[in-house]
Amino acid sequence: MKIHGRHYRTIWVAKDGWSIEVIDQTKLPFAFATRHIASVDDAAEAIKSMVVRGAPLIGATGAYGLCLALRANASDEALERAYDMLVKTRPTAINLKWALDEMMAAVRNRPRGERVAAAHARASQLCDDDVATNEAIGRHGLAIIEDIAKRKPGKTVNVLTHCNAGWLACVDWGTALAPIYMAHDKGIPIHVWVDETRPRNQGGSLTAYELGAHGVKHSILTDNAGGHYMQHGEVDMCIVGTDRTTASGDVANKIGTYLKALAAKDNNVPFYVALPSSTIDWTIDDGVKEIEIEERSGREITHVQGRTEKGEVLTVELTAPGSPARNPGFDVTPARLVTGLITERGTAPATREGLLKLFPERAS
Amino acid sequence: MKIHGRHYRTIWVAKDGWSIEVIDQTKLPFAFATRHIASVDDAAEAIKSMVVRGAPLIGATGAYGLCLALRANASDEALERAYDMLVKTRPTAINLKWALDEMMAAVRNRPRGERVAAAHARASQLCDDDVATNEAIGRHGLAIIEDIAKRKPGKTVNVLTHCNAGWLACVDWGTALAPIYMAHDKGIPIHVWVDETRPRNQGGSLTAYELGAHGVKHSILTDNAGGHYMQHGEVDMCIVGTDRTTASGDVANKIGTYLKALAAKDNNVPFYVALPSSTIDWTIDDGVKEIEIEERSGREITHVQGRTEKGEVLTVELTAPGSPARNPGFDVTPARLVTGLITERGTAPATREGLLKLFPERAS
Repeated sequence: MKIHGRHYRTIWVAKDGWSIEVIDQTKLPFAFATRHIASVDDAAEAIKSMVVRGAPLIGATGAYGLCLALRANASDEALERAYDMLVKTRPTAINLKWALDEMMAAVRNRPRGERVAAAHARASQLCDDDVATNEAIGRHGLAIIEDIAKRKPGKTVNVLTHCNAGWLACVDWGTALAPIYMAHDKGIPIHVWVDETRPRNQGGSLTAYELGAHGVKHSILTDNAGGHYMQHGEVDMCIVGTDRTTASGDVANKIGTYLKALAAKDNNVPFYVALPSSTIDWTIDDGVKEIEIEERSGREITHVQGRTEKGEVLTVELTAPGSPARNPGFDVTPARLVTGLITERGTAPATREGLLKLFPERAS
Repeated sequence: MKIHGRHYRTIWVAKDGWSIEVIDQTKLPFAFATRHIASVDDAAEAIKSMVVRGAPLIGATGAYGLCLALRANASDEALERAYDMLVKTRPTAINLKWALDEMMAAVRNRPRGERVAAAHARASQLCDDDVATNEAIGRHGLAIIEDIAKRKPGKTVNVLTHCNAGWLACVDWGTALAPIYMAHDKGIPIHVWVDETRPRNQGGSLTAYELGAHGVKHSILTDNAGGHYMQHGEVDMCIVGTDRTTASGDVANKIGTYLKALAAKDNNVPFYVALPSSTIDWTIDDGVKEIEIEERSGREITHVQGRTEKGEVLTVELTAPGSPARNPGFDVTPARLVTGLITERGTAPATREGLLKLFPERAS
């Protein structure tokens, strides 16, 4: 997408043709900076320190990390060592392991002299595939926005989103935000309600940043406010991303998604979830019972990072000192609250039958 | 209530018998300090600068401000001047005007020599009345907690609350927190889920502070997390306060209350609202349509105050610079989501009939 008029992906091959550049997301939203990655160690460090974030982007960075390792040493031993190091950088990121396995499959049986080129080709393909998947999600979601726009000609379509399911988490486009960018680029008047998404404020920092940089109108809200705007007819639809969707359409996503889905239901606002089919877990049904929710540090609630008037970025304590805090990272929105699942193959009802119609190869 | 073992009200007459002391709430939650108020100017300043906050406490401070004005000059002119000055300190605080009017009625027709004593007596009475009202609310709410405790003997009762409806907003006890303090003091094992309550963090700062200081177990949550804990059976009931309740039981309260009420309904968790009957607006019915919601500055969302590691309290920016933010202060929870209204006369269903049974004098 665009940053003040110039097109970017979140990761790309540098002008030298072999090293990598990424957007340094630790500097956002206060500054835009890129980071040069010239070794497997640089790649591992970028993942660990969250210079890159978002499952698809972490996968892509890991993939290019293997390319850089092979460039230094194309032996089997070096390859295995690089794989082990990279896979440990974010052990819960399923996508990272998947991308590294794809890379291993692409180079393992090749002669050493061909490995670097093969690795670069595969990493580049992984990135392009991610872009193509998100672009397809965007097109299917765009059709939904266009339908709403037709019903209120000349008026702004108001879309609420939670957390950051944008292009900064991917290689380009994003999932939930892809339809929004496409609608904006087509000239549909659109405005996005951006939940700030406590505790880590991915909405108020990253989503607001990327929408603003691309020129999409938006307003940041506390996570408390969306229900009020839905009650007053100021939300036409919700679109969120997901970390994991069950075979029957229950959706695990950033904590607080469930509350917005309840408010949408109560006010007849359509609630959509945008997802690459790779995040569907076909082995489970009941998300509330079967998905274990990661509990994160209470310090993410009691302390927050921000920028002082002098431009210094520092951490301050917000709460009564010594107060305990509990911090579940995700919640599960039951399928009954979801209007539709927007995948790269089209939009399905949030039911087993709906999903199997799009993915018949999953029927057993 | 108690602060680390010592009993406090939020406002009291100093040892000299005429000047006033209050808890300086601008220093909370990072420090406990009291502020001495020795003149009507001091009182006005304490209200304006939010040294005192919460409708009942603002009213009490205004009342004592008039006492101090009369002590300096008991003439009619001085009285009127003090009234005008005090009533303008927080023009939207209905309770302040009500308290000042009560004070005027108590002193206006008295000879100058008796005015100071009469004013002190009336101000003291206003404080005691507030305490008695909240104590009655506490007793009626306690009965509900006791019922829950009986159904899970020996186990902790988990109560979720939003914002600060505690004793720091009142003279003592609080509204929503009064039943919790009584249950705790009776030895019922109780744990409070404290919504942090963005954007002003009244939960994470004030509610967590006062519960902690009195020794009540609690955990701070982001406003996003309550639904998740309700889905998993970890919330036995919700209690919140209200700024205004309609004659048919719709409840205006701090933004985000509606989302918690939806989650409570979806998970069969009882949702109670604690209120002095003075906050019932008998002239309106449909809260969503008829209650105008104050829109506050977006800066409350984009910037936050906290304490640095060095102990300095300062403001930092959280969001993408230049991003617009929208900040409605309250929302309306429809009566259909409210299990009961806990008033000083008992607990009523959130219906016109329910309220009129407790307040038959309001039937027309």
